Amino acid sequence: MADPKFFQKSKEFTLDQISKITKITLPKDINTKKIFNDIAPLDSADKNKISFLNNKNYINQFKISKAGACFLKKDFLNLAPKNMIPLITENPYHSFALVANAFYPSKDITAGVHPKAHIETSVNYDDTVQIAPGVIVSSDVTIGSNCFIGANSVILSGVTIGDNTIIGPNCTIAYSIIGSNVKIHNGVRIGQDGFGFAENQNVRIKMPQLGRVIIEDDVEIGANTTIDRGTNPDTIIGRGSKLDNLVQIGHNVVIGKNCILVSQSGVSGSTVLGDNVIIGGQSGIAGHIKIGNNVKIAAKSGIMKNIKNNEVVGGIPSVPIKDWHRQTITLKNLIKKK
Amino acid sequence: MADPKFFQKSKEFTLDQISKITKITLPKDINTKKIFNDIAPLDSADKNKISFLNNKNYINQFKISKAGACFLKKDFLNLAPKNMIPLITENPYHSFALVANAFYPSKDITAGVHPKAHIETSVNYDDTVQIAPGVIVSSDVTIGSNCFIGANSVILSGVTIGDNTIIGPNCTIAYSIIGSNVKIHNGVRIGQDGFGFAENQNVRIKMPQLGRVIIEDDVEIGANTTIDRGTNPDTIIGRGSKLDNLVQIGHNVVIGKNCILVSQSGVSGSTVLGDNVIIGGQSGIAGHIKIGNNVKIAAKSGIMKNIKNNEVVGGIPSVPIKDWHRQTITLKNLIKKK
Amino acid sequence: MADPKFFQKSKEFTLDQISKITKITLPKDINTKKIFNDIAPLDSADKNKISFLNNKNYINQFKISKAGACFLKKDFLNLAPKNMIPLITENPYHSFALVANAFYPSKDITAGVHPKAHIETSVNYDDTVQIAPGVIVSSDVTIGSNCFIGANSVILSGVTIGDNTIIGPNCTIAYSIIGSNVKIHNGVRIGQDGFGFAENQNVRIKMPQLGRVIIEDDVEIGANTTIDRGTNPDTIIGRGSKLDNLVQIGHNVVIGKNCILVSQSGVSGSTVLGDNVIIGGQSGIAGHIKIGNNVKIAAKSGIMKNIKNNEVVGGIPSVPIKDWHRQTITLKNLIKKK
Repeated sequence: MADPKFFQKSKEFTLDQISKITKITLPKDINTKKIFNDIAPLDSADKNKISFLNNKNYINQFKISKAGACFLKKDFLNLAPKNMIPLITENPYHSFALVANAFYPSKDITAGVHPKAHIETSVNYDDTVQIAPGVIVSSDVTIGSNCFIGANSVILSGVTIGDNTIIGPNCTIAYSIIGSNVKIHNGVRIGQDGFGFAENQNVRIKMPQLGRVIIEDDVEIGANTTIDRGTNPDTIIGRGSKLDNLVQIGHNVVIGKNCILVSQSGVSGSTVLGDNVIIGGQSGIAGHIKIGNNVKIAAKSGIMKNIKNNEVVGGIPSVPIKDWHRQTITLKNLIKKK
Repeated sequence: MADPKFFQKSKEFTLDQISKITKITLPKDINTKKIFNDIAPLDSADKNKISFLNNKNYINQFKISKAGACFLKKDFLNLAPKNMIPLITENPYHSFALVANAFYPSKDITAGVHPKAHIETSVNYDDTVQIAPGVIVSSDVTIGSNCFIGANSVILSGVTIGDNTIIGPNCTIAYSIIGSNVKIHNGVRIGQDGFGFAENQNVRIKMPQLGRVIIEDDVEIGANTTIDRGTNPDTIIGRGSKLDNLVQIGHNVVIGKNCILVSQSGVSGSTVLGDNVIIGGQSGIAGHIKIGNNVKIAAKSGIMKNIKNNEVVGGIPSVPIKDWHRQTITLKNLIKKK
Repeated sequence: MADPKFFQKSKEFTLDQISKITKITLPKDINTKKIFNDIAPLDSADKNKISFLNNKNYINQFKISKAGACFLKKDFLNLAPKNMIPLITENPYHSFALVANAFYPSKDITAGVHPKAHIETSVNYDDTVQIAPGVIVSSDVTIGSNCFIGANSVILSGVTIGDNTIIGPNCTIAYSIIGSNVKIHNGVRIGQDGFGFAENQNVRIKMPQLGRVIIEDDVEIGANTTIDRGTNPDTIIGRGSKLDNLVQIGHNVVIGKNCILVSQSGVSGSTVLGDNVIIGGQSGIAGHIKIGNNVKIAAKSGIMKNIKNNEVVGGIPSVPIKDWHRQTITLKNLIKKK
């Protein structure tokens, strides 16, 4: 059970309500008014809890689980224990997430600007926002409805933020247009100068960075991640993309929609990613290249040239993933021969 | 000598006092009241300074050092210069560190809450703590005795902190139980959401992250490091473990006791490390695997499967360290043949 | 055109003025009073804009560009379109950067200490500095003329800062001597303890870190980068060096002049870099080694031993760059044979 010191469960749900939340058709001949009071994993759930089976590895736990109801794929229906109500779905983990979000919603925003926040008079916002103590909001910022800005964060001049966006504590946001339903975690830096210099005999002067950062709707950005603003045009993070902690995004990078960048990965300046790209942890992508749609990049890879749509790559420099595995095996065999 | 603008030496010590601090038996027939006024390296020490010899590479410096006393192993005793008092120990660097800490103790805490800190009324603490200006402490936080919280740090609701713990400036701590004698450096982020989503046709919803972060006693966490809270159960950093700067710890990770994670290394979600594990810089460990006790991982390695107790590994993907060296040599030889 | 919400153009310039800014000799028989009102890329420039040609890849754009004037190398003069005024220079990108900085100068500092900053009485500064709200400056700090310190940054006791230095929001600076014309981006951590411990039977005590960080003039440090102070002596970043985001610099490291460290690279403790060293993104350098002048290190490399002046290396562990390319090709060929 979640520690009640940190997590407040909202309430209980009937099977009917759960059916509506997940758009799942309930089995016939059950009591649709039966009440469930929490979510739980298969091995600790009791008859008042809802669980899920997503993975063959947990079938033994599933067979003896005491969970009152369980999301599962049709294929496993005949293995369900006698007293469990089966909730058939194509995507049990996704259904479970929907119910988990219902039981543990994001904390309600206690609207209002804390008296220890500092908001310039030209800032545009309504009384649905919550701004924590120590926040600094500079001139000409626009903040949408139901936004939350965490303690000691700094929002610099001209930034625009959409609705329902959450910015954690200790962040810095500058030169940016931030969408709606965006979640920016603690310590994120968005919109600082890109790393662009003009060099003359080893001495470098800064090239002015005259672009912005555009964060589209539904994006999530992990703790202490850094996103530089464009030289002009802009650095763009596409709708629905999720960046993990300590990720680096260089100036003028364009990230497509629904991409995943796992922690400590980096994308160098002016590189363009398609949609649905998945980048493993600690991978790096060179500058000025193009990564196609649906590309998957293994952890710790180094990408130095364009990658076509739908390719799966790994290694430094990267090769098709099967070739990378073959190289690894070949090297292992080579030292055996010696 | 340390810059007195930044470092205040506490006082002087007699050989008797140094013997007590280090639990070293003094040589016979020496003046145990002799006073030492500082520590110094072999090459700049004078007769009033204490030095150490930890490494054969410094034997030439040692033979002509003017240090008044020196920690060394028994084996080097016959090479000591005439006027140096030899302080025999199995671990000269550790003995030197004990004395260095005596000469340069952590700054005394000037107890009290700065009037420009913001502490909610429900926070539990006594008058031995020091809280710097700009700190924000949310509701229901408990802070132990003699803790220090640096300027502009943010401690969110429900966090518990043990005794004698130091949190640097500009940190964010949320959903966490922090032990005693813990040192958290500047800009650390602890307790934010893990990177967990349920995906349906490339669109992702957040899985609520209902666990906490447990930081056990005597842990040190480097600047700008990020530690996500568990999904439920918790993310745990075991007693005495030391994390360097810019390290990433995913949700549900368990780090054993006395582990070392060098800078820019990362551990992915749900992976479990045993005790005394050493992870080199920029290494990455995949999620959902198990690393045994006393494992050593070379810098820049990629660990993709379980590692047994006491193994030493390197490479991407990692292999036993000797095999990695052989692979490296084999590759070098292959290109010579061409 | 740069978004006027974020970027204010200063004014217009005549060709005469541009000639003075760039030290370029104008062609004969042109109207040196002709006015230019902005910079622009070749493909969107009109007759009132100045552009540049730095790269053969843009020759087709160049031939049909409507730019009123363009920086270019002598070799391309005969390809210039009829109405373009050619501005001949050995380094078109550098000349363009000079003019770009003239059109878009760093924002003027609105001098003064914000009433919501907290400055200890012993701090030394004049009325040309600007200190934003939420900044905390501890005792005995010295701040030079025309410095800017961004919101919620923390400057700890004894730090000295030269003239014209810019420190972004949410930074922490401790135990440091910072030069003039330095730019420190958002969330940077400078001067915290190095990662130095004395170990005894797996238990570690901290070795006091009694050195400082010296940042020389004209250095730039990227967002969320971390620089540990020395054990004694100091950690040093040499004049004109540029560090990107999320870079890690260990204790006692010495970086020479005019070095470039691309994002997510790291240098371990006590390593010394010469001048003009370029380190690619996500590269790591082991501790206690020496890197010569003018060394270039490919992205994602691992450097484990000394590198001589002028070498170019890549790979993990690194080898001369040509050998690394050969190894890569050899591996590709090996798996084809199978």
